[in-house]
Amino acid sequence: MASMIFTDCSSSTTARLVLLPLSTNTIRHGVLQFRRLVSPKPSLPRFFTIHTSTSPSLITAAMSTETSAKVIDGKSVAKQIRDEITAEITQMKDAIGIVPGLAVILVGDRKDSATYVRNKKKACESVGINSYEVHLAEDSTEQEVLKYISGFNDDPSVHGILVQLPLPSHMNEQNILNAVSIEKDVDGFHPLNIGRLAMRGREPLFVPCTPKGCIELLHRYGVDIKGKRAVVIGRSNIVGMPVALLLQREDATISIVHSRTKNPEEVTRQADIIISAVGQPNMVRGSWIKPGAVIIDVGINPVEDAKSPRGYRLVGDVCYKEACKIASAVTPVPGGVGPMTIAMLLSNTLTSAKRRHNFQ
Amino acid sequence: MASMIFTDCSSSTTARLVLLPLSTNTIRHGVLQFRRLVSPKPSLPRFFTIHTSTSPSLITAAMSTETSAKVIDGKSVAKQIRDEITAEITQMKDAIGIVPGLAVILVGDRKDSATYVRNKKKACESVGINSYEVHLAEDSTEQEVLKYISGFNDDPSVHGILVQLPLPSHMNEQNILNAVSIEKDVDGFHPLNIGRLAMRGREPLFVPCTPKGCIELLHRYGVDIKGKRAVVIGRSNIVGMPVALLLQREDATISIVHSRTKNPEEVTRQADIIISAVGQPNMVRGSWIKPGAVIIDVGINPVEDAKSPRGYRLVGDVCYKEACKIASAVTPVPGGVGPMTIAMLLSNTLTSAKRRHNFQ
Repeated sequence: MASMIFTDCSSSTTARLVLLPLSTNTIRHGVLQFRRLVSPKPSLPRFFTIHTSTSPSLITAAMSTETSAKVIDGKSVAKQIRDEITAEITQMKDAIGIVPGLAVILVGDRKDSATYVRNKKKACESVGINSYEVHLAEDSTEQEVLKYISGFNDDPSVHGILVQLPLPSHMNEQNILNAVSIEKDVDGFHPLNIGRLAMRGREPLFVPCTPKGCIELLHRYGVDIKGKRAVVIGRSNIVGMPVALLLQREDATISIVHSRTKNPEEVTRQADIIISAVGQPNMVRGSWIKPGAVIIDVGINPVEDAKSPRGYRLVGDVCYKEACKIASAVTPVPGGVGPMTIAMLLSNTLTSAKRRHNFQ
Repeated sequence: MASMIFTDCSSSTTARLVLLPLSTNTIRHGVLQFRRLVSPKPSLPRFFTIHTSTSPSLITAAMSTETSAKVIDGKSVAKQIRDEITAEITQMKDAIGIVPGLAVILVGDRKDSATYVRNKKKACESVGINSYEVHLAEDSTEQEVLKYISGFNDDPSVHGILVQLPLPSHMNEQNILNAVSIEKDVDGFHPLNIGRLAMRGREPLFVPCTPKGCIELLHRYGVDIKGKRAVVIGRSNIVGMPVALLLQREDATISIVHSRTKNPEEVTRQADIIISAVGQPNMVRGSWIKPGAVIIDVGINPVEDAKSPRGYRLVGDVCYKEACKIASAVTPVPGGVGPMTIAMLLSNTLTSAKRRHNFQ
């Protein structure tokens, strides 16, 4: 499938932009897991094209060379949260002798999945969470995976269970994820959790990690959410939809932009807070941003870069260079939302252990 | 609690409007169940005030005496749906000898609740659904209610269970509603159903009746939803939130206006489709409406009316007179969404029976 998109946001703001469906990449824990690098050549639009109608004032702002936005440093916030978690875990161990445990099930030999699992394991070790890993062969049966889930569901030393996605194609992902006990669903993706997240007066057992990380960044940077216009770009089950529900719980007035939105630029430009999670490099240009808006960029997109030793570099959904001139605050990529996701996974695992053992 | 609101939308469009929290009334099956009539005297704003900034073109439209909007006739659509349900029930009975059954549990002596239950019973009879009613005394225990729910859960002749709200204050509503089997939750309010409604690629067992009725009206009147801007006013668990999720499933670009929204008029004016469910008489004025918008008005609000033999009349959230001049289509109150809610309840009960007996 030939794909495109602008890999460099220095191109004209009146260029044609194309919003591709989120499914072209897989997001897992806020990281867009990619199969191939996007090509810098534009292809035909799949859903819609946008001719940007940049307002004069915005052009002026975009053309100025000043950089005024505050950088929202996810790496440093995540470090702070991990320190807080470490302290709580030490305190719990001392008080009641309990150490939280996270089990991860990996099926098959995908290198990227193996890297994500290794990173989670390292993160657990760094804060004092016990990690348990099961690595099954690509040709394992669904029953084998279910057997391990059932074992972890019953194991009192395990407080969180993660099944690393994607699973091999012969397995039914929904069956497998539904088998994880809702009490240990630290991913927070169980429909019962999502339902509680959507409903006023109900509380989910766990809030999905990346959305929780986005809101935590806003909180820790003192961004007022109540009564603000918030636009979420993307409506995936794992980022866009739950982050919109969280923003609404915080009394923002939300709008959700997606691949069928006819005028995404115009809608986005109304936002005081923009959270983008579509996986399209540099899609959100300066002209999409209201001066002073706060931007949380969830996209982590590889684009070809001959100058990089790896042959590519990572960019967000938002054209960072342009955003810095117009927004009041923006997350960088990498170093923005990415580090928050694993921190929130550790936080959910700790929450689970505290709840299980009634430890405040 | 002294309350207000404009009972007559002939008042100036630059008047102060106040949006009260939804909780001042109780919505059940799309009907705002009211304790007292609202007083026509404006009181102090509780959340925010709006000074409308009507654009000249809108003022012109509002001042014209022409009425151009199509009336979305919920009564007639509901009749049509009930005829379709009757035909399907006859067919199912002839083919497999099964008749759908709906059980309703009423606790206490509220006259309005008794009326709603009676109306549901009558509606069931009219389409050939068996109805079962349990009427418990106000001082019944939670255990007694749970015992009946458990009995209906196990009864194969019952395909849907409704607990009429509100319950007496000594009962835990959430415990009682959670006891209804998700397979018989024809209200569609179980968090698991709401979660599935929110998630792409998942299907709820039942869609909540009033939201389903709103979308059905749009469908039957050939209103295109895909790619349209839709504004939902109100974020209740039973109307606002699920109807927003449904609109998003239909590829609308949704925005949700609520009591904390700073500029509800401005946000609403961007909508191609407005669905209002706040329970505030005549809150949405002509100046809130984009010319040509389609309006679904879920509010059913009693306002004092000395000329009426009952001393009051029912009006919607939307100033119907002004809407008729600006919108392309609008639901009246009464006779709009109201009749659709019970039709959708019958539809959900039929769906449940068909699923249980694998009847297509």
